[in-house]
Amino acid sequence: MNLAAIYHRPESEMAYLYDEETMHIRLRTARADIAAVSLIAGDPYSLRSLPQVEPFYKRPVPMQLILSDAQFDYWQISVTEPKRRLGYAFFITDTAGETVLYTDKGFVPATDAWLMDMNTYFRMPFFQTIDAFHAPEWVKQTVWYQIFPERFANGDVSNDPVGTKSWRSTDHPGRQDYYGGDLQGILDHLDHLVTLGVNGIYLNPIFKAPSNHKYDTQDYLEIDPDFGDKALFKAFVTAAHARGIRVMLDAVFNHMGDTAPEWQDVMTHGADSKYAQWFHIHEFPVTYTATDNFEFAADATYDTFDYTPHMPKLNTANPEVQAYLLNIATYWIREFDIDAWRLDVANEISHHFWKQFKQATTALKPDFYILGEIWHNSQAWLHGDEFSAVMNYTYTGAILDYFIHHKITATAMMDRLNQQLMRYRDQTNQMMFNALDSHDTPRIKTLAGDDMDLVQQVLAFTFVQPGVPSIYYGTEYGMTGENDPDDRKPMVWEPALQDQAMFAFMQRLISFRREQAPLLSEGTLTWHIIKTDVVALTRTLGQQQLTAVFNAGTQAEPLAVTNVLLANQYESQHLAPHGFVIYQN
Amino acid sequence: MNLAAIYHRPESEMAYLYDEETMHIRLRTARADIAAVSLIAGDPYSLRSLPQVEPFYKRPVPMQLILSDAQFDYWQISVTEPKRRLGYAFFITDTAGETVLYTDKGFVPATDAWLMDMNTYFRMPFFQTIDAFHAPEWVKQTVWYQIFPERFANGDVSNDPVGTKSWRSTDHPGRQDYYGGDLQGILDHLDHLVTLGVNGIYLNPIFKAPSNHKYDTQDYLEIDPDFGDKALFKAFVTAAHARGIRVMLDAVFNHMGDTAPEWQDVMTHGADSKYAQWFHIHEFPVTYTATDNFEFAADATYDTFDYTPHMPKLNTANPEVQAYLLNIATYWIREFDIDAWRLDVANEISHHFWKQFKQATTALKPDFYILGEIWHNSQAWLHGDEFSAVMNYTYTGAILDYFIHHKITATAMMDRLNQQLMRYRDQTNQMMFNALDSHDTPRIKTLAGDDMDLVQQVLAFTFVQPGVPSIYYGTEYGMTGENDPDDRKPMVWEPALQDQAMFAFMQRLISFRREQAPLLSEGTLTWHIIKTDVVALTRTLGQQQLTAVFNAGTQAEPLAVTNVLLANQYESQHLAPHGFVIYQN
Repeated sequence: MNLAAIYHRPESEMAYLYDEETMHIRLRTARADIAAVSLIAGDPYSLRSLPQVEPFYKRPVPMQLILSDAQFDYWQISVTEPKRRLGYAFFITDTAGETVLYTDKGFVPATDAWLMDMNTYFRMPFFQTIDAFHAPEWVKQTVWYQIFPERFANGDVSNDPVGTKSWRSTDHPGRQDYYGGDLQGILDHLDHLVTLGVNGIYLNPIFKAPSNHKYDTQDYLEIDPDFGDKALFKAFVTAAHARGIRVMLDAVFNHMGDTAPEWQDVMTHGADSKYAQWFHIHEFPVTYTATDNFEFAADATYDTFDYTPHMPKLNTANPEVQAYLLNIATYWIREFDIDAWRLDVANEISHHFWKQFKQATTALKPDFYILGEIWHNSQAWLHGDEFSAVMNYTYTGAILDYFIHHKITATAMMDRLNQQLMRYRDQTNQMMFNALDSHDTPRIKTLAGDDMDLVQQVLAFTFVQPGVPSIYYGTEYGMTGENDPDDRKPMVWEPALQDQAMFAFMQRLISFRREQAPLLSEGTLTWHIIKTDVVALTRTLGQQQLTAVFNAGTQAEPLAVTNVLLANQYESQHLAPHGFVIYQN
Repeated sequence: MNLAAIYHRPESEMAYLYDEETMHIRLRTARADIAAVSLIAGDPYSLRSLPQVEPFYKRPVPMQLILSDAQFDYWQISVTEPKRRLGYAFFITDTAGETVLYTDKGFVPATDAWLMDMNTYFRMPFFQTIDAFHAPEWVKQTVWYQIFPERFANGDVSNDPVGTKSWRSTDHPGRQDYYGGDLQGILDHLDHLVTLGVNGIYLNPIFKAPSNHKYDTQDYLEIDPDFGDKALFKAFVTAAHARGIRVMLDAVFNHMGDTAPEWQDVMTHGADSKYAQWFHIHEFPVTYTATDNFEFAADATYDTFDYTPHMPKLNTANPEVQAYLLNIATYWIREFDIDAWRLDVANEISHHFWKQFKQATTALKPDFYILGEIWHNSQAWLHGDEFSAVMNYTYTGAILDYFIHHKITATAMMDRLNQQLMRYRDQTNQMMFNALDSHDTPRIKTLAGDDMDLVQQVLAFTFVQPGVPSIYYGTEYGMTGENDPDDRKPMVWEPALQDQAMFAFMQRLISFRREQAPLLSEGTLTWHIIKTDVVALTRTLGQQQLTAVFNAGTQAEPLAVTNVLLANQYESQHLAPHGFVIYQN
């Protein structure tokens, strides 16, 4: 038995409240090393205080092997306990029949369970609902639609910036170009989104800022005048809500733009500025040496985002800055009733601040959704008291590496997806934001070499994963685009350029995802490799079950299924290359 | 290579800020499997934004194998980074020469480092001092002395409860007995503590409560009249502080005593009581069936501590209860300047509450010490935003199992101690509360079968461990006692019964610990097994170093050392059984 591979961590993604009464408990063991795991679990005080009751260690309950990755098998079980206090330990039997008991203090002989005092057990000392991860339920039903506001639609030419270019969706925009997109344009096209079927809009920043992307905020309490004003934004939120569409804004709290008055004050008054402690300044005056390289400056005398001197990093340990940002965070909820914040560069801001942020926002709106931008292991932010989820680049990255980039095998993709799923609580996985592309990546169609079957296949694959799908504006009409700035082309409103077949497909896919929301959100996941590059997965929730098959190979695959819910390139009981079929079991 | 044994967890005890500029990074590998580990670490943005700079992955730095336990080797390194943003990964070479690179996404070939983007690295996105674990520095210099107030000294016979027994330290107290111990008695004997050398007093509960142990609180804002009043307590704290002695009180916040007016109100008014939501009541009226078995009731209609119907559990998710308890927590700091709280049954109260507790108490006194009573894995409470430390029963339990109970080998003891040390950050280990006995366990002398050499040996061993030693009142005079209530005998003030040799030894041991505080608190730990049952350890801090040798065997051990700092049973270059010697290297 590979004892060194066996791992459990109390009060983590491996032992957590799933609902008020139910705990999920996981165990990790070396892949294919262990034949069976059983849990012994019960109220630890019963062992010493209720001698008349049969001790719980006499009632082991089998755990299920739920997923595996390259190194590990993961076992899981749901347990409850009327007293809401739990002691537990694992009986582990390997493929050779050897058995051990794994406890809070390490391994003991399996026959020694009766010797263990209550503190030798792993413990969930009390089921504290207030400490649990609470998912905003509406997110499970949501399909997000991401809009880069400067490029979605120009609804009001009167607010176009000087030098606005004319709207041609075939353009390759330059880094500094303006096309006049605005909130009126989005408002005007809300019914397009209703027809498409999405029910959440994620807007890239809309606050006053000089750039076209608005990540260099100048004033967090003003709508950028190029986009409109507060009255218009209020009308937009109201109109979206009237259509059952939620609204998520982008909070750029890691840094300000250097045109913000607070930073300007520091530039002018140096150490005497009342904002001198709002940033991380190592030396006054604040200076840097500009370079050609996107103006990256390695020698700025203050902390910046990346090496960008125009984005001075905020000092979120300063209570004044905390109050300032929390006011912003709550202002747009209080006054405009937004439903979610997406947090830019969320990983570089303190946990201390995010805990305050979570409390302040959910105090106003208990089911508020908080989405962090983090591209790496996000466990530290996802215990329930900071974010609802993160942008799941690590997850969708594995999907792209298999279906699009052909860099890894199907098995390797599943391993990587499973590894990610096992890093987080089940509730967290249900909230994850799964986007294949965004304003920060090439568009999926371009990545797929314009192969629309492949685009539809990978979108369908993403839509049947745990988590919440998001599509980038224009995907529904087959828009293309290389990396930034090319992924920010003006939206294709010219009918002749719109891929109507793709639109119809996206309508079906989105409608399917929303109809199957409970199953696709909460259902368990099982993988099947039918043959090399023909992969399938089954989602199960109670009596409900569906299976999705994806042919990522080069040969048509014979496949006879009934109760088809959604398919592409599935005909005459054959699944063509880049085809998929989703059916009810 | 046992890949499945290799483990790292970002932002945990395996990757944390040790001070503002220094991160500690640990890696766990299977025991004796890995020959070398090197870290590659640097500012992740430099990889993409500073092409002119040599990439940091070309500069691997060796990590040190610091400790091992039954299953694992633990490697550690201190790193810094001027930009205070860190990406890192591990080059791992096994004993067969095979090499891999361990990253946030899993294992990659060691030659692929140059292919990795910034998000493939493990990340400490920004060094957030506000998120780090901050140790109250004074605790490192402290030797605690635990007093069970009802049994330490009767300084004021006027407040003796009815039926107070006369003070005989040879008595075997009954569970309900009173001996008249009080605050005046402690105040009167402060100079005894000064002479002994301790500089911290941990008082078991002193608030108004019917029992002699006062864990069944009736009024958290009153001193129990049997012990004195607030003026006297203030005088006591002032007198202790004047002598350089800190004061820690016992906060019993998991439950109230059932004589508390809030619970009485619930008993009287049921669901109509304004305190009905202060507890966890499943059904009104609140009832239970008493049994003989210590009055444990399995059928109480409300949650209790253990199965004790007289201790109804408080609902700390209720904001009113939170405010009530936080007021108590801060009141005794604001008005009486106490230095620490020991938190009874700390594990069964929500993290949500303890985070508030930490903020409220440290807002008043930044170097406040918060000590949780937890007998199992305490990682979830020790990230820096809840407790400073826990009562380290798991650690001292391993010491007792070896030296006293002879249940495990020296190697097994070291494995268990190392396992515990590697569960926590180095700063946390420096704060841990190491007691060999207390009001909840038999006294160490009784456990040692009255063998005073053994008692001194195990005390000396505990005093040279990382963490803060605590002794239970009377240890200095050789008091004995079986488990509760026998461990709560009246303090031995009768000179004829006092073990003066033990007192002199404890003076030397305490003085030694305080003199060597920086080294014994912050120094690294290295173990040596000289021969079976002759164990040694070395503590090292910069140029300072000391070694301690303990003969737990039955034969005298030849041992020639110089610069002896403290010893017992070390003569003529021989260390007798149950002897020890501590010397400067």
